Amino acid sequence: MSIINLDHLAANPLLPEVQKAMIDAINKNYANPSSQHKLGDEAAAALQTAREKVARLINSPVEKEVIFTSSGTESVNHAVKGVAFANANKGKHIVTSNIEHNAVLRTLRALKMMDYRVTSVPVDHYGRINPTDVADAIRDDTILVTIMHSNNEIGTIQPIEEIAEITKAKKVIFHTDAVDSVGVVPIDVQQLGVDLLSFAANQFYGPSGVGGLYIRRGTRIWPLLDGGVQENNKRAGTENLIGIIGMGVAADLAKREMDFRIKHAKKIKNRLIEGLNARIEDIYINGHPELSLPNLVSVSVRFIEGEGIVLMLDEENIAVSTRSACAAGALQASHVLLSIGRDFADAQGTLVITYGRDTTEAEIDRFLDVLEEVVQTLRNMSPLYTKVKQEKAEGAAAG
Amino acid sequence: MSIINLDHLAANPLLPEVQKAMIDAINKNYANPSSQHKLGDEAAAALQTAREKVARLINSPVEKEVIFTSSGTESVNHAVKGVAFANANKGKHIVTSNIEHNAVLRTLRALKMMDYRVTSVPVDHYGRINPTDVADAIRDDTILVTIMHSNNEIGTIQPIEEIAEITKAKKVIFHTDAVDSVGVVPIDVQQLGVDLLSFAANQFYGPSGVGGLYIRRGTRIWPLLDGGVQENNKRAGTENLIGIIGMGVAADLAKREMDFRIKHAKKIKNRLIEGLNARIEDIYINGHPELSLPNLVSVSVRFIEGEGIVLMLDEENIAVSTRSACAAGALQASHVLLSIGRDFADAQGTLVITYGRDTTEAEIDRFLDVLEEVVQTLRNMSPLYTKVKQEKAEGAAAG
Repeated sequence: MSIINLDHLAANPLLPEVQKAMIDAINKNYANPSSQHKLGDEAAAALQTAREKVARLINSPVEKEVIFTSSGTESVNHAVKGVAFANANKGKHIVTSNIEHNAVLRTLRALKMMDYRVTSVPVDHYGRINPTDVADAIRDDTILVTIMHSNNEIGTIQPIEEIAEITKAKKVIFHTDAVDSVGVVPIDVQQLGVDLLSFAANQFYGPSGVGGLYIRRGTRIWPLLDGGVQENNKRAGTENLIGIIGMGVAADLAKREMDFRIKHAKKIKNRLIEGLNARIEDIYINGHPELSLPNLVSVSVRFIEGEGIVLMLDEENIAVSTRSACAAGALQASHVLLSIGRDFADAQGTLVITYGRDTTEAEIDRFLDVLEEVVQTLRNMSPLYTKVKQEKAEGAAAG
Repeated sequence: MSIINLDHLAANPLLPEVQKAMIDAINKNYANPSSQHKLGDEAAAALQTAREKVARLINSPVEKEVIFTSSGTESVNHAVKGVAFANANKGKHIVTSNIEHNAVLRTLRALKMMDYRVTSVPVDHYGRINPTDVADAIRDDTILVTIMHSNNEIGTIQPIEEIAEITKAKKVIFHTDAVDSVGVVPIDVQQLGVDLLSFAANQFYGPSGVGGLYIRRGTRIWPLLDGGVQENNKRAGTENLIGIIGMGVAADLAKREMDFRIKHAKKIKNRLIEGLNARIEDIYINGHPELSLPNLVSVSVRFIEGEGIVLMLDEENIAVSTRSACAAGALQASHVLLSIGRDFADAQGTLVITYGRDTTEAEIDRFLDVLEEVVQTLRNMSPLYTKVKQEKAEGAAAG
């Protein structure tokens, strides 16, 4: 069964080079990197090689500033809870935005139950934050600003450098959830000026269940996982070495292929947006037209439900998502779409189309063909759409 | 280079069946189990199969009571912090033992910095806890008892069922760190009566970086990783599906081969202990002679340093450890050995010998040959040993 995968954000395939490296690691049967004998030395060397590759991808100056985690979610939990707990004596106030991923939102919800207070800054209709709002939200007891680098539903990229200048001046720790950016667009932690940066391997064709956290040296933070002395004493637990080796190879490839991948993604994005605009009426393309991820298009298809579109596309062997896989089981309308001004109904009619380096224009054309039909079918069944269409026709006749 | 691996606890090799299942999963390139389309369905089914296998290994009645984590350490952190945070309004007192793994110890150290209070019960010279001590330690504000099932340094198994009866009667949540027991000795969560039980795949020939946590339904606990709705809303983050599939296969094999593995391990253990006692003088075999893990022997070799033994054995291609790999970078003497009455010097001279289903008697004999020589060499260089030997000789002459 050949499936057109336009849900790369949830399910990026492993690249052949990554598969090979992981299979080699499985066959090699590495020991525990912390062991004191020869078997351990080989494992420790493999761990180190992977760390260097990942550090290079984000231009981390010292390799020890990158630790491996089990997911972007763990990295975010580590960053936010780790700073909150370590700095509670200084204050319990945190600044964030209205459009963060659930990993940040729900972590903050847990912290609120522990008497932390959160100020959430709004976004404009493109989903962009105004750095001045962040500056205004920072108080004397603010210990952390956590703002995502790019949004996983609409792709909009935030002015992280400008926010970092504010946090530096105000001596507040700054974390950015860059899970959807690292490996997709150039990320340079030194240039960004952040203290903490979360990312995950599966966003750049590495394995699921492996993440990374950049921790600038000197950042006051507790571990999330206490125990052994692994990861420079910052994250206990025997390492998922097979996954980490896969992440290293994926990071290396992402760095080397970055320009090509971005160029290809932009071409796909343009074709997709032009096709959507030309062939389907009553849609919104969400997110910033320029300052956004090249590998994502969010489209709100008015008068119908995204879930219905996904199911019908699935019948035609096209995989696409209404929103992030992490929230697929949740029933609420997307807080991101509501924040940029979509109403509840339009938010429910939204597709997040994500594609990759191997996505072809032919696949996009096939998707557009099927989508056009699916949307027509669903709209014909929609009483709301029939009513709106009738009103439009009457308006045209009257005009 | 053929290496005799007597450090199985740190570095259990993957079984061929586990390797094959993981390689198949890599080649299959599974999607995200949470996705709403066909690609996601296959991944979700693979996740479910693994969960059923793991649930069967510990006789968990409902599969949803088992969640996958990234390590035994994560499971322990989740259990202990999750209960501590969720029940803070009821109290902030926790009961534990003097010989827990660093995952428990350091988690409790972090909680103490958040105003939690900890009572630690002692052990006898075999490393056994007296359940009455646990009962006496429980107060009105006690919210959690966390006692390990078996000890990773000396192998002693605790009276978990008896402790569970006490915690049930006193309505206190009971967690057991069973990382070194699950897959090694029969574990039945229903029979044990615990509320929470932590375990890890690499202890039974599954991959490192995958763990499990049994959470009895109705246990009041917070997630450690907040975010998406994965793992029945109990543990956010895209799953390490490749590792989880490996854990499932390893769990299935562990259950089926359990009797054989225990029988084999006991044979090896007897040969090892008899050999050590017959060939090396001035040693202590640590841990309970009966109520202990079959796959571990702890021996304190007096008058010399364990580190020196490990290095010299490594030269001879024999991998063995002074203690758990997680603590290999730590410099303090083992708190476990001090707790059972070893002095500082003897604790430093201790080897933890762990072996597996493929360890042969010939390997044990070779190890004993080399160890005898190594110990003699190191003791001949030890001024302390020379002095003691001289005193002994004089005593014998005088007597």
